[in-house]
Amino acid sequence: MRSLPHPDVQEIALDQVLSALADPIRRVIVSQLAGGHDDQACIAFDLPVTKSTSTHHFRVLREAGIISQRYRGTAILNCLRDEELAERFPGLLDAVLAEDSEVQGTTATAAAARRL
Amino acid sequence: MRSLPHPDVQEIALDQVLSALADPIRRVIVSQLAGGHDDQACIAFDLPVTKSTSTHHFRVLREAGIISQRYRGTAILNCLRDEELAERFPGLLDAVLAEDSEVQGTTATAAAARRL
Repeated sequence: MRSLPHPDVQEIALDQVLSALADPIRRVIVSQLAGGHDDQACIAFDLPVTKSTSTHHFRVLREAGIISQRYRGTAILNCLRDEELAERFPGLLDAVLAEDSEVQGTTATAAAARRL
Repeated sequence: MRSLPHPDVQEIALDQVLSALADPIRRVIVSQLAGGHDDQACIAFDLPVTKSTSTHHFRVLREAGIISQRYRGTAILNCLRDEELAERFPGLLDAVLAEDSEVQGTTATAAAARRL
């Protein structure tokens, strides 16, 4: 089984986490993972972007240490590394998601869509 | 007196705030403003960057709504918009600064210096 590289929790860097979360599409992904069940396939996400752009966003999130990704057959399953992030940067993810939860499905998605 | 443009509190955008805070030099500036007195001149900051790079970082912070800048004579005085940020994105600035306060003066500054 192929596996994808992930940073260890101590290697997770604030620069990279903030940069990854600065994108509204990536925050939509993180919000959906935070609100959903543990394992979600990339294809389960309803994102207003092309497949290759979507793949790029998931990779940025994985490399920043925000999500984990693993293969199940030909699908990639995604999981939020929320406990590790809370250990590394207490309160950060909650603060970011709190803002987006207020506008989720309206402003954030519309703003993201306008950028395409 | 010249004045510089600032976003209103409701115009402060999470994308721009996170993107601005993703830079370690800009977090050093924000940390120093958070720990210091209200008004600090740009020249009071000990940053391992050139004057023009420093000016750029302060501008990015102002345009993101993180700091206010105003002229006093020929100096620019900087002030953290911490109360407005706390109103707009509760907990965010604290979460970001908490991390950097642990490594301030060591890892963060060294990492920032390595990027120059």
